[in-house]
Amino acid sequence: MPKHILNGYRIIDLTHVLAGPSATRLMAEMDAEVIKVEFPPTGDIARLLPTLKNGRSAYYVQQNRGKLSLSLNIKSSEGKKILTKLIKSADVLIENFAPGVIGRLGFSWDVVKEINPSIVMCSLSAFGQEGELSALPGFDYIAQAYSGIMGMIGEKEGAPSFPMAGIGDVMTGVHAFGAIGYALLHREKTGEGQFIDVSLLDCYTHCHEINVAVYSMSEPKTIPTRSGSHHYAVCPLGLFKGKNKYICIIALQMQWASLCKVLERQELENDVRFADNDKRVENAATLIDIIQDWIDSQPDDETVIRALEKERVPCAPVLNIAEVVNHPHLVERGTIRKVQDPKVGEVEMPGMPLRFSSFEHNQELVAAHLGEHNEKVLRDVGYSSEEIEFFKAENTIFSNSNT
Amino acid sequence: MPKHILNGYRIIDLTHVLAGPSATRLMAEMDAEVIKVEFPPTGDIARLLPTLKNGRSAYYVQQNRGKLSLSLNIKSSEGKKILTKLIKSADVLIENFAPGVIGRLGFSWDVVKEINPSIVMCSLSAFGQEGELSALPGFDYIAQAYSGIMGMIGEKEGAPSFPMAGIGDVMTGVHAFGAIGYALLHREKTGEGQFIDVSLLDCYTHCHEINVAVYSMSEPKTIPTRSGSHHYAVCPLGLFKGKNKYICIIALQMQWASLCKVLERQELENDVRFADNDKRVENAATLIDIIQDWIDSQPDDETVIRALEKERVPCAPVLNIAEVVNHPHLVERGTIRKVQDPKVGEVEMPGMPLRFSSFEHNQELVAAHLGEHNEKVLRDVGYSSEEIEFFKAENTIFSNSNT
Repeated sequence: MPKHILNGYRIIDLTHVLAGPSATRLMAEMDAEVIKVEFPPTGDIARLLPTLKNGRSAYYVQQNRGKLSLSLNIKSSEGKKILTKLIKSADVLIENFAPGVIGRLGFSWDVVKEINPSIVMCSLSAFGQEGELSALPGFDYIAQAYSGIMGMIGEKEGAPSFPMAGIGDVMTGVHAFGAIGYALLHREKTGEGQFIDVSLLDCYTHCHEINVAVYSMSEPKTIPTRSGSHHYAVCPLGLFKGKNKYICIIALQMQWASLCKVLERQELENDVRFADNDKRVENAATLIDIIQDWIDSQPDDETVIRALEKERVPCAPVLNIAEVVNHPHLVERGTIRKVQDPKVGEVEMPGMPLRFSSFEHNQELVAAHLGEHNEKVLRDVGYSSEEIEFFKAENTIFSNSNT
Repeated sequence: MPKHILNGYRIIDLTHVLAGPSATRLMAEMDAEVIKVEFPPTGDIARLLPTLKNGRSAYYVQQNRGKLSLSLNIKSSEGKKILTKLIKSADVLIENFAPGVIGRLGFSWDVVKEINPSIVMCSLSAFGQEGELSALPGFDYIAQAYSGIMGMIGEKEGAPSFPMAGIGDVMTGVHAFGAIGYALLHREKTGEGQFIDVSLLDCYTHCHEINVAVYSMSEPKTIPTRSGSHHYAVCPLGLFKGKNKYICIIALQMQWASLCKVLERQELENDVRFADNDKRVENAATLIDIIQDWIDSQPDDETVIRALEKERVPCAPVLNIAEVVNHPHLVERGTIRKVQDPKVGEVEMPGMPLRFSSFEHNQELVAAHLGEHNEKVLRDVGYSSEEIEFFKAENTIFSNSNT
């Protein structure tokens, strides 16, 4: 009985750090054979990122559980031959080098499709494979700045703020993961492989809900801007200061009467200053003060949250990381899960975000040390023990059990 | 010749506003027959969201181009019979009502799988289908607060800021889109359908790159926190004030020497205060001032960017929406595209984020008025003209060509 949907699929994973590894991590959780190809002698630089314990990075563990590690020098001619054999045997090839690098290594899509016409190849990058920005070095925040998303976060009069989390890389990985799934579906029916170009810039820009159209349709041209902790076009929608934490409160038209009831200010419901969302935005400062005063008058944050919940006014405490990790709902659902690692020990991590009714959620998987599966992988594509010994001696393959 | 991968697939789309419609929009762009089922008399409330022109919302257009609109009263017994027929004929059913609602409407997974055992059903929600939070009303920002992501954005000493963009909804839609693709792959090989549970809370939590593990492994427990416009653990990584715009600059160890060269301060390369990232974080205030002083000494932002780019130090201007919409790279790649709508006219929107080599990028598609495809859809599942007239007369189906 296969453990999950991708049982029997072989993924050659030339990615590093975050966006690419996020995509192939989901595939590993779905039982694919992900062969992570890492350059000697360091491998994926995520192996050096904090927090480390017993020589192993939890960052690496989080993104690479369940993958096989092949540490291969693909700059050498022997390494290229081995990679060619792997590509011939695989369903998917994925890479996130800077655009052009994979071609200079000898594995552009034109070459790869000659080696294996039914393979799905996916390249991830900051700006896409082509265009004037494509040659620039890029990270999550760089693409976030160019997409206009960064400019939409932070106080209006101050510098933008950016999320201390890898949202862009992770969700770009999810875009790639999705695209690869559909390309595999297409291949299942037609036998044809194809190439997929996924970029942080495209994915971030994809997240503009209304900003682009609002600007495009405005006459005269008006530019939507960031507005701190209160929405510029919906009121109330924002953060209020509780005794211990910030509290997010949202009342659209359908929740307005309920909010007035919670505030014990039913007369506001028909107050002309707050007659509809436009009026409430116009008088936002007054309304925000009214809500803040009510919060200040309550004994604690819990009372505030319960009162709003009782009337089904959308609200939430802004949790810190400790509260997230220990929240019963997140723990019971496995949104936060405990992972056992042979070196790091027990550590909490985000759970598998996708829940399929036919398969178990949150598989037990282990991260590999650098080159841990060199022999297994090479044997699988037909190399003999003698050849493997030769590759070792020539430093075509490499391993380090202390990683 | 099929226009794209999902040609021939029928998706019954009971979703509204953003997360669900984002998922099915990608499917429509990939040539699926997406039948959007909208409650009379308003339909998806996104039809009321700004900006409107000639009675049509650009918000709706952005998320619903290429979908068929069936306005069906699924609370009526005739409506339920019609939906049952549609489910029997479909490949995918997707909904984002509050958990429990779809069951009360008579279409829980237990019922749906009896109607069509090979269908893929996906439910999207704020907190997931089960667990203590699942019954609460939720929006993007509510899940963002509970996931701990919101708490990681904004100035350390002030209120968190939140993105004025639908990042959470859109990327949750992409998670669902991906999961459905793999479930369709599974079905292609086994004939089996299944149920998929996707939530904003799971997807947001999924984006914590290192925060959860860093907290989990710390002794004594330390809680990672937001840190405004400069990263708390990497330096330099942050926003600097240019003459006209903020500029994002990142220098990891491998770019440090290059940055010193750009600053014309080569002596800093071996300065003990900045010997490695830990030391640079320790002396962040000093280093940030040095970089800011250099920027202040330059004639304009363009000169700053070009100097950094020349030495391949990752950098970016923080663009506003106008600059994004008009940026040659984004326009030429179709990351920003012009859409022609019969009512709204020409309007700019984010492009299709996924680029497949076998298919055209950015298809021409049109958004439907409410109930525009009632007859087509009902005829396709075998209803006669007389029956369709009867459904119209009984208000089981509804249409409004002014939407």
